Amino acid sequence: MKIVIPQGFTLAVTSAGFKTPGKTDLALAVSDVPAAAAGVFTRNQFKAAPVQIGQHILHERDQARAVLINTGQANACTGAEGLANCRLTQEMVAVVTGLAPSEILPASTGVIGAQLRMDAWQQAIPRLVENMGGADIEDFASAIMTTDAFPKYAGEQFRMGAGMVSIAAVAKGAGMICPNMATMLSVVLCDAAVDSASWRELFPRAVAATFNRATVDGDTSTNDTLYALANGVSGVQIQNEDDFAVLEAAVTRVLAKLAYMLVQDGEGATKVLHIRVSGADCAGDAEQCARTVGHSQLVKTAMYGRDANWGRIVAAVGRCGVPFNPADLVVNVCGVELFKREQPTTLDFDSLLSEALAQRDINIDISLGDGPGVYTLLASDLSHEYVSINADYRS
Amino acid sequence: MKIVIPQGFTLAVTSAGFKTPGKTDLALAVSDVPAAAAGVFTRNQFKAAPVQIGQHILHERDQARAVLINTGQANACTGAEGLANCRLTQEMVAVVTGLAPSEILPASTGVIGAQLRMDAWQQAIPRLVENMGGADIEDFASAIMTTDAFPKYAGEQFRMGAGMVSIAAVAKGAGMICPNMATMLSVVLCDAAVDSASWRELFPRAVAATFNRATVDGDTSTNDTLYALANGVSGVQIQNEDDFAVLEAAVTRVLAKLAYMLVQDGEGATKVLHIRVSGADCAGDAEQCARTVGHSQLVKTAMYGRDANWGRIVAAVGRCGVPFNPADLVVNVCGVELFKREQPTTLDFDSLLSEALAQRDINIDISLGDGPGVYTLLASDLSHEYVSINADYRS
Repeated sequence: MKIVIPQGFTLAVTSAGFKTPGKTDLALAVSDVPAAAAGVFTRNQFKAAPVQIGQHILHERDQARAVLINTGQANACTGAEGLANCRLTQEMVAVVTGLAPSEILPASTGVIGAQLRMDAWQQAIPRLVENMGGADIEDFASAIMTTDAFPKYAGEQFRMGAGMVSIAAVAKGAGMICPNMATMLSVVLCDAAVDSASWRELFPRAVAATFNRATVDGDTSTNDTLYALANGVSGVQIQNEDDFAVLEAAVTRVLAKLAYMLVQDGEGATKVLHIRVSGADCAGDAEQCARTVGHSQLVKTAMYGRDANWGRIVAAVGRCGVPFNPADLVVNVCGVELFKREQPTTLDFDSLLSEALAQRDINIDISLGDGPGVYTLLASDLSHEYVSINADYRS
Repeated sequence: MKIVIPQGFTLAVTSAGFKTPGKTDLALAVSDVPAAAAGVFTRNQFKAAPVQIGQHILHERDQARAVLINTGQANACTGAEGLANCRLTQEMVAVVTGLAPSEILPASTGVIGAQLRMDAWQQAIPRLVENMGGADIEDFASAIMTTDAFPKYAGEQFRMGAGMVSIAAVAKGAGMICPNMATMLSVVLCDAAVDSASWRELFPRAVAATFNRATVDGDTSTNDTLYALANGVSGVQIQNEDDFAVLEAAVTRVLAKLAYMLVQDGEGATKVLHIRVSGADCAGDAEQCARTVGHSQLVKTAMYGRDANWGRIVAAVGRCGVPFNPADLVVNVCGVELFKREQPTTLDFDSLLSEALAQRDINIDISLGDGPGVYTLLASDLSHEYVSINADYRS
């Protein structure tokens, strides 16, 4: 599917040699005009240099012009040298583009602890800027991949008044995925005219409803960053609450597509588990229960093994620490009720579920009672391939 | 190593056909005289029938005569029929031994949700009681194994006054190991004379210091049970606080050995990670940090891959949710300082650690600052074999 680049944005990618030679690993998105800028960042206490610098910029200014992303080195746990290097990369791009360094939002992903290879940056930046306009959304998404198996991008266009608004977004990430504010890296470009304050209000909510409900391995990265630019070049003005609601719904749908792709492409993943907990006393309890099930190694390996193992789901729910009456628990997998009134149902679920469990998408519905708390979580399964990837990869 | 059966206890095992034909799967320990009885049980909200019945007995009485354990069926999530069946097994044993049913503490392990096979019990009980005295501690430990690769038992003897006290203990468990009150199953036999109240006081502390600090997969079972009997047959009286301290230290050492074995035999485990967090504001914070690291799939797979991946340890510490100053974090693996002042050290730790990481025992020392909080946790690694075992095993 071709995703339209929102008006007034230009993209460039190049291969700087940060990762596999010949693969693109450096990406730049530039807005023709200053854009309302929002950021959502990792809550990990160890924040990579570009996270610290991006947070600082968005604290000082409400607009930005560009996002600059490299893969290969995360520039995390790199101390003062890492911060200085990150600033140097902003300056290198500023010199050749005419932008101010503080208009360029930086993000990095890759191996933790290694310093940026500044000589390679020096050589790559002129080439990158020469390529401006030569990349589409898919190229951009491809250039920020690390262990990802496929590029992740999504978009939406909608009519508002006389004009047309375009949203395009990319994300990357396959491991260290349990975003807590944002995913590994994501960039959202939009050509609506929206004031910065409203634009910034939108993302914590949109991220809470999408990326923060996706988990591969329960590990939150040091580099999680989402940047979102809205440059107004479409001429469409977000004027009132109704307009804003339409925009927020569209952005949230786009991020939901990316969140699904993150889990689908989770390291070694063969399944996307759609875990829905309802009937809890509050949403927080439902979330705690869903995360306990979604992080259970025993549930994840059972799903990989296509085993309708309600016993492991029940055991995980039973240890999740939220109050509920065991007699009220109902567990339903792919539409088949497996557990009720503290006992398995008598259905022959091995035959009933054999086809459903061979599919990629597995629904696990857990009802704890009749409380109002609901939470949904996307989780991957746990496979041999996951262990292979992670017993070898040096991060 | 031969472990002495404490005086006044007799053991029996038999093969009832609950699991692999020909393998022992039913075990009975009987004290000649009423023994002070303690129990520690799972905190999982779904408690197996024998857990419910054992808890009830120890609530009503402070002494017991016997422990009866089967493998093959966990008798969990089996409803009223499961409770009735459990009581029937007590009665069957009572009839042929002359004990009262309520003097027999029951425990089960195996597949969740299946009812006990009462016809097999009926045939096996007379054979079991005929075998009384024919089993030693290793036979007893072997009879309660499920996915365990080896039987787990330990013991200690010590002189007190003119007499000699013996302690012998067994445990089982390789998966669904993150005990929260006790391990999967454990039985402690002791021939000291100690009042029930003191004996019961000892175990929450001893378990907190041993089994509750062991994790394989972070999943807490529905059947976790520890039973401990002290029958006084040695004639040695625990008379004062000093005596009691000696006894508690010995019991704790025995349980620590078993906890180590549980992790060593964790499903697919090739490593025992000794995670020690110090310098936290309080012990609870240290524990939360240690558990975050010990449950991190990325840390566990790195250790399986013999990779001194400090980045994953630092990322896990950074998301663990306890307050600390990132500048204070020091990470030390197998005695080599890998991370300090927010950066990796410049040591060539790949060469320094290659030999140490090939060993079974890996020390991971994490200092968060200069607070008083300390916690140690034993955790297994995460291997291909773990996935194989759990993608196939139906529980």
